[in-house]
Amino acid sequence: METITQIISRSPITNKDYPLPRDTNDKKGIENFLSLHSGKKVVVVQGLGFVGSVMALVVANALTEEYAVIGVDLPTVPSYWKICSINEGIFPVRASDPKIEQYYKNALKKKNYYATYDSYAYSKADIIIIDINLDVKKAENSDDDYNVDLGPFKKAIESIGDNCKPDVLVLVETTVPPGTSEKIVKPLLKDCLKKRNLSADELKVGHSYERVMPGPKYIDSIQNFYRVFAGTDERSADAVEKFLRTVIKTDEYPLTKLGNTNATEMAKVLENSFRAMNIAFIVEWSRFAEEAGVDLYEVVNAIRMRPTHKNIMLPGLGVGGYCLTKDALLASWARMNLFNSDERLEQSEKGVEINDKMPLYAFEYLKSQYKDSLKDKKVLLLGVSYLNDVGDTRYTPVEGFYDRLEAEGCEIALHDPHVLFWEEKDLSPNADIDVLLKQQYDIIVITTGHKEYRGNPSLIEKLMQQPSAFLYDTIGVLSRNEISTLSAKHKVKVIGRGDL
Amino acid sequence: METITQIISRSPITNKDYPLPRDTNDKKGIENFLSLHSGKKVVVVQGLGFVGSVMALVVANALTEEYAVIGVDLPTVPSYWKICSINEGIFPVRASDPKIEQYYKNALKKKNYYATYDSYAYSKADIIIIDINLDVKKAENSDDDYNVDLGPFKKAIESIGDNCKPDVLVLVETTVPPGTSEKIVKPLLKDCLKKRNLSADELKVGHSYERVMPGPKYIDSIQNFYRVFAGTDERSADAVEKFLRTVIKTDEYPLTKLGNTNATEMAKVLENSFRAMNIAFIVEWSRFAEEAGVDLYEVVNAIRMRPTHKNIMLPGLGVGGYCLTKDALLASWARMNLFNSDERLEQSEKGVEINDKMPLYAFEYLKSQYKDSLKDKKVLLLGVSYLNDVGDTRYTPVEGFYDRLEAEGCEIALHDPHVLFWEEKDLSPNADIDVLLKQQYDIIVITTGHKEYRGNPSLIEKLMQQPSAFLYDTIGVLSRNEISTLSAKHKVKVIGRGDL
Repeated sequence: METITQIISRSPITNKDYPLPRDTNDKKGIENFLSLHSGKKVVVVQGLGFVGSVMALVVANALTEEYAVIGVDLPTVPSYWKICSINEGIFPVRASDPKIEQYYKNALKKKNYYATYDSYAYSKADIIIIDINLDVKKAENSDDDYNVDLGPFKKAIESIGDNCKPDVLVLVETTVPPGTSEKIVKPLLKDCLKKRNLSADELKVGHSYERVMPGPKYIDSIQNFYRVFAGTDERSADAVEKFLRTVIKTDEYPLTKLGNTNATEMAKVLENSFRAMNIAFIVEWSRFAEEAGVDLYEVVNAIRMRPTHKNIMLPGLGVGGYCLTKDALLASWARMNLFNSDERLEQSEKGVEINDKMPLYAFEYLKSQYKDSLKDKKVLLLGVSYLNDVGDTRYTPVEGFYDRLEAEGCEIALHDPHVLFWEEKDLSPNADIDVLLKQQYDIIVITTGHKEYRGNPSLIEKLMQQPSAFLYDTIGVLSRNEISTLSAKHKVKVIGRGDL
Repeated sequence: METITQIISRSPITNKDYPLPRDTNDKKGIENFLSLHSGKKVVVVQGLGFVGSVMALVVANALTEEYAVIGVDLPTVPSYWKICSINEGIFPVRASDPKIEQYYKNALKKKNYYATYDSYAYSKADIIIIDINLDVKKAENSDDDYNVDLGPFKKAIESIGDNCKPDVLVLVETTVPPGTSEKIVKPLLKDCLKKRNLSADELKVGHSYERVMPGPKYIDSIQNFYRVFAGTDERSADAVEKFLRTVIKTDEYPLTKLGNTNATEMAKVLENSFRAMNIAFIVEWSRFAEEAGVDLYEVVNAIRMRPTHKNIMLPGLGVGGYCLTKDALLASWARMNLFNSDERLEQSEKGVEINDKMPLYAFEYLKSQYKDSLKDKKVLLLGVSYLNDVGDTRYTPVEGFYDRLEAEGCEIALHDPHVLFWEEKDLSPNADIDVLLKQQYDIIVITTGHKEYRGNPSLIEKLMQQPSAFLYDTIGVLSRNEISTLSAKHKVKVIGRGDL
């Protein structure tokens, strides 16, 4: 008798289990789907994550053309359920944007959005959009050590090259190290075509970066937003432009064409490095403000009166999400490895390094202000996601903060109205505030600035049942007046408000 | 027979020589002046530099009160001529702001602006405004080594404490390390009063930072601009507020009061560190852009379409002036030395460090692009000041660039319509463009973005008489089209435009 161990991919939405397929053949499924859409251009989206799954949805709802859309991902534990879910009529991304539901219903009606794990899909594509991740591995025990492993990315490109038509348009949307489209993607695809004895003369490769924001304007962040694009040559640039005009409202949000793909790739990582650096800047100053007994909020508000200084940030718990935590490192890595510079992007790397320490700083500040031991203390964290009013937990700084509380022996409760399941920690935050109100917490920490907490000091006060309850607002959700009122009965601490 | 060596202070405006005075007694002059203004409050401004001399002028033209104003500076070679000049009816600061002339004429008519070198003036003051410099000494041969010497600043405070009335208001406007008013100025003044057997109970010390911009809106940058202020106690804060309301248009530009002087002192250096860091950011990326063949100008313009990213800067020759080149260092020094932190402000220090290297980078880029030896080449630098349309040469990055060209054996000509005399280098730029047009230059470098050069490609073209003339625009004065036109005949290079 043979024992077969089935590996399962579970949907966090329906809790349904999907055994991973034994082989990767879905030729029949793909051909069945395409037989419904003969004559239409076929767009294949590689990667069904936060960007790819929704980008595919937008293409299935293109403005001026009817496409047959296939989403491709790997038949792995974290991804396989998404493929099944899409084909079963349940969209795999939960979001507060009502357009998601509406667009998905429309795609179901038109039956023009299919998902598969079979690379055979690439052989049918007129346009392939690359929306897979390209990760940076940060060293656990070192401040500034990290590595960019292009291996998985290259493998994904090869799976396209081994199957694609020779005249396909490959549009890279992944945030990549500058230089990648020209120096990695195009040569790899050419090599693959050569091995297949096909000419690469008609191959088109371009790059256009997305600015997708999972949240209430998820769809708009793709369809109604400025796009920057370039081609590895003029033909490619033209093909990218033609395609983008069919899916993006370019009359309201004009396209910006740059001179080459190095430029568009650089624009994306520069943009995010700029933001990360601005956050790092205020992190350092908020710690100085605490030391000097200065309320950094009033300082920043005073400075913001100057138009040139409007976008100075305010301090918080940390930086999360998929972009700001790594894009500067991608860029610096590219400078040294793809362009052979002997210099890093020091200032930008420093920004990421400082931001990575924020949850630690916030924890240390709590420790220094709470004074009593944290062991066995009941702690409630309000907010798990890294962004206000959004259920995205990727690289959330709450994780580092949570881990340290846990290591200290705290008993931690979590609340987040937008996060039913915290994938990275395998935890379910308690969305029911009434249950929480029945508990008594020693320490309440506002860790995300959701609107449920912002401007809601009466909720906060109700949660502070014990007179000794300690409130720590890491986001600056409370105003000066609200802090004063709460301070009458409780100890209240805010990062960057050293004189309170 | 006795030989007397007279030390001379020369006015760069009139070229008149003033022998330094033998003693510092000007009691008679001060009393004569004050006898004209009995009943008026006496405001003494310490320091007659770019800020103090004009601040005194604004106070002499106060909006809602008549003051008797005395400017005090040291009888030294760089300062003594200013004292004499003010008393002889020639304002020591040249500026394109017509209000300077108008305000000075008015003060001459009212005879309410006197200048002296005698500390006796402080004994007559109701209000003393501190506008002296507090410098950072940077190490010559090290990237990140610097020192803040409070010695001269403390000496200046003591000269006040040794003479002032016990109930004087001392308003610090100097950009100081955060903590200075509370931890240095107030204790020093108290000590002095104690030594004089006077009570310090009525002493008032406050801080309010100026945002003076020498240039076409010089006066407005004091009188019509947002002010941030604080006192070392409530009484002091009230006195500062009352005074500022008499000189600043506070109905249009409301005052912002902060919780303590640490906060106002921090606000100023934070504001300037933010700007310096943003410049440093783009310096690094412009060098990466060159390496990657990317036009950073088009990248930045594409990114600026996002409101949150509007103030990304563009690359240039470097950072100059008295603030951005040092304020982050003052802050970091204060963090470690006045608040005993064991951490620096790394990100902000890094910004200054990178900016300081900009002229070197610009020079190295020229060398790499020019290819031929620079020895004996005729080079014309267009612009000497650090800021567009202003004649201010303090810490101008053009100096570092000039020095390197000189060391390379270039024959350098200078042009700057706003700088008659370049004090730091003891050079007179040639303001007459017709003379320059008769010369033949090998290399023309646009070093300041004055409006005379900006949008004036025909002037640039006329200056490029030799077909081999090489143009290097370090500021991005030329547009893409203008570069294309010029490139037809000449070699044109722009920092951060790697694909040209």
